Amino acid sequence: MINIMRLKTFMTTAAALSLSLLAGSVQSLQAVEQTNFVVIFADDLGYGDLGTFGHPTILTPNLDRLADEGQKWTQFYSAANVCTPSRAALMTGRYPIRSGMCSSRRRVLFPDSAGGLPQSEITIARALKSLGYRTAAVGKWHLGHLPQYLPTSHGFDSYFGIPYSNDMDRDGAKSPKGREAFWNPGSEYWNVPLMRNTEVIERPADQTTITKRYTEAAVDFIHENQDQPFFLYLAHNLPHVPLFRSEQFSQRSARGLYGDVIEEIDWSVGQVVQALKDTGNEENTLVVFTSDNGPWLVFDTHGGSAGLLREGKGSCWEGGMREPTIFWMPGTVQPKVVTDLGSTLDLFPTILSMAGAGTPADRIYDGFDLSRTLAGESRSPRLSMIYYWGEEIWAARLGAFKAHFTTKTEYVGQKAVKHDPPLLFNLNEDPSEKYDVAADHPAVLERIAELVKSHEAGVVKAPTQLTALELPTNKPSFLIK
Amino acid sequence: MINIMRLKTFMTTAAALSLSLLAGSVQSLQAVEQTNFVVIFADDLGYGDLGTFGHPTILTPNLDRLADEGQKWTQFYSAANVCTPSRAALMTGRYPIRSGMCSSRRRVLFPDSAGGLPQSEITIARALKSLGYRTAAVGKWHLGHLPQYLPTSHGFDSYFGIPYSNDMDRDGAKSPKGREAFWNPGSEYWNVPLMRNTEVIERPADQTTITKRYTEAAVDFIHENQDQPFFLYLAHNLPHVPLFRSEQFSQRSARGLYGDVIEEIDWSVGQVVQALKDTGNEENTLVVFTSDNGPWLVFDTHGGSAGLLREGKGSCWEGGMREPTIFWMPGTVQPKVVTDLGSTLDLFPTILSMAGAGTPADRIYDGFDLSRTLAGESRSPRLSMIYYWGEEIWAARLGAFKAHFTTKTEYVGQKAVKHDPPLLFNLNEDPSEKYDVAADHPAVLERIAELVKSHEAGVVKAPTQLTALELPTNKPSFLIK
Repeated sequence: MINIMRLKTFMTTAAALSLSLLAGSVQSLQAVEQTNFVVIFADDLGYGDLGTFGHPTILTPNLDRLADEGQKWTQFYSAANVCTPSRAALMTGRYPIRSGMCSSRRRVLFPDSAGGLPQSEITIARALKSLGYRTAAVGKWHLGHLPQYLPTSHGFDSYFGIPYSNDMDRDGAKSPKGREAFWNPGSEYWNVPLMRNTEVIERPADQTTITKRYTEAAVDFIHENQDQPFFLYLAHNLPHVPLFRSEQFSQRSARGLYGDVIEEIDWSVGQVVQALKDTGNEENTLVVFTSDNGPWLVFDTHGGSAGLLREGKGSCWEGGMREPTIFWMPGTVQPKVVTDLGSTLDLFPTILSMAGAGTPADRIYDGFDLSRTLAGESRSPRLSMIYYWGEEIWAARLGAFKAHFTTKTEYVGQKAVKHDPPLLFNLNEDPSEKYDVAADHPAVLERIAELVKSHEAGVVKAPTQLTALELPTNKPSFLIK
Repeated sequence: MINIMRLKTFMTTAAALSLSLLAGSVQSLQAVEQTNFVVIFADDLGYGDLGTFGHPTILTPNLDRLADEGQKWTQFYSAANVCTPSRAALMTGRYPIRSGMCSSRRRVLFPDSAGGLPQSEITIARALKSLGYRTAAVGKWHLGHLPQYLPTSHGFDSYFGIPYSNDMDRDGAKSPKGREAFWNPGSEYWNVPLMRNTEVIERPADQTTITKRYTEAAVDFIHENQDQPFFLYLAHNLPHVPLFRSEQFSQRSARGLYGDVIEEIDWSVGQVVQALKDTGNEENTLVVFTSDNGPWLVFDTHGGSAGLLREGKGSCWEGGMREPTIFWMPGTVQPKVVTDLGSTLDLFPTILSMAGAGTPADRIYDGFDLSRTLAGESRSPRLSMIYYWGEEIWAARLGAFKAHFTTKTEYVGQKAVKHDPPLLFNLNEDPSEKYDVAADHPAVLERIAELVKSHEAGVVKAPTQLTALELPTNKPSFLIK
């Protein structure tokens, strides 16, 4: 493998123009070696669905290798347990309560939604673009599908993908009723649009080739931008149901269709890494792999596994928000299993820091800069996590301990139950949240209550974007919920 | 690392004398390079308790490395869900129903037991000894503690360890009552003997240093026998409760005491591998790591985790009998994740095969020779598994499918429930045994019924050894059950 270290020309003009955005920036205005960033984001992938995270029959040799050569984070969280708020948090480094991208009533955006990520929010792409990066979003967006909310309005030079979930826009005339459509799905059952930039180029999107086409777009982008700093956000819309995979991966996995889908995503990771190697960017690119929320358990074998964690998607139990996460950058990310806390909230400040900049000083960030932890120089600065269910705080973690104030078994339609005193689990010793130790640790409960109080005091809640409807002009043919 | 390939002198006289035992042997009677064997056996380790099998806070870098460099088997079974029958199966390559080493009434041997592994059974040690191997048992035995049943009567040149479980011989005068003794255990609460060969050398055994001392004995044995073929059976008596670890591992793991114990065992694995490297035996020794049965869930955080598998020790659900298993022998074992079936039953024929011999022709073996699978040359020859609960068959697996004829939730004292038709799970697609598919696969149920019938037809049930009592001469001060 030829490994060419190159100097990338830093676009001083563009950067200087935009630096006012980034008041905390320490970016020097000279030619420097800029780190590239590739964030690979799966959809509804379970904590236990990769080989290196313990799945017995799904084979993920590419991801396993990245985990061995890089850092495998075993306590890494998305900032929400469903799609839209989770993605908003990753993109902005802020809990979605600050951007209006969560709601307890309508938990994600739907095809009839009129809202989206406000222009007042700064995405990773916009921040990096101001530093001279080329930026591409490939895959699922789900932060608003009206023009002002699309990736190209949020700092991405280009966009290729579907604007919301692959199970939306159900076509009642073509699809079997209810769950039936999912067990042997056809692309035509869902009238999902495939977009390039702001145009719909295919509808319904042919979902059988979607992972393959996303991968090709990602590889092309890397080749086209090999000599300038780039940011690639590759957000697969699978393994969210309905499940699809290309011919090549059909009937390949012992785990069945779900396994085929994950093995194709693993193949895709291998292709992206190969493109980095082929372009000499292997040691100059941070690759992050994680997922938006836990497995959708209600879909039986079409949903994933949270491994030893309790519950899945939609829930504030660990299975809902702890994600199988890998950081890889040979020579920079020190190989290690990291058991400290991390979150998708941390990607914004970490990426900005590794790009030589700070976070904008005009707003509150909920993320931490993990770059020194990635370099093996320090423990993770993250000591806590807040678990939102819509706009409400249902749980909070501080160090090893997690308190649940409200719980619900998401997948059997149980009602929410409030707990006073809260349930308390030591997640380091009891990752499956089996043994309530609240009675033994009143002081811990007090400290967690203070943490939540302090967090709440720092939150200015934005009006939610998720309940605004665009009726009747864009009324969906079918809503899954 | 210096890697010296050596010719080991094959002890032709001893071997020739004993070859009559091994009617199927193809051993040639000349000096050959003999493979050494190290079997490391944990006690009550859960499927999900190693890093490479998905545990988030137990760090097992040595085992993870062996899994990366060797083969990680994700569907590997012990032949019983409790200690004594599981060990009998490993040692003999036969289901314990054939040797009398199981019972539905008294499921393991206790300090008042008069029975043990009959002399008519051939252990791996005895078979290898007849081929000129030096043999050592270090650790827990649990196949009979009267002289005629001890390792030194079963083909081992030496023995250093405890004869039964570390929670037996409870000393009521020194120990707190009931479960209390386990939460902060002292070695003196259990009057467990530590033996060297046939002599008790320490009682109660100092359990805090037990893993360390076993490791030292193992390393010494490797050094002492570095120039002749050897078989080391290193059977840790941990993480069976009560949990102990040495000073060096105290308060080390985020997982708490249980994690400390596993991390010391992982350290021990590293020491053994280092000894193999130091003596030039790295590429000439097959190392196998596995466990006797699943985690003892009733002991809360003092018990392990079966990861995504259902239930644990004592049960015929997957968590009771599927074990985290690793094979390692650089240059011979081809690095791979193996999802095919394997079992501790297979160690006897595999080891004998790699030693150049076959299995004795005078009896039925339940194991398969996995050596070609280890070499990366073929799929595993094992296609089925029978799950015994004591002397009864409660479940059977054929290919991807497992039928449960009788089930019981072991740890809440539920009664056994018979199923007609049986429950049926596709374990490749549904490793957590959640979705009964019996109604969809009547033909599979028929084939599994035939498998069980054919297995039963081939079994001559030996009188059980586990109910014979040695009262009143050796009456135990306390029995855990």
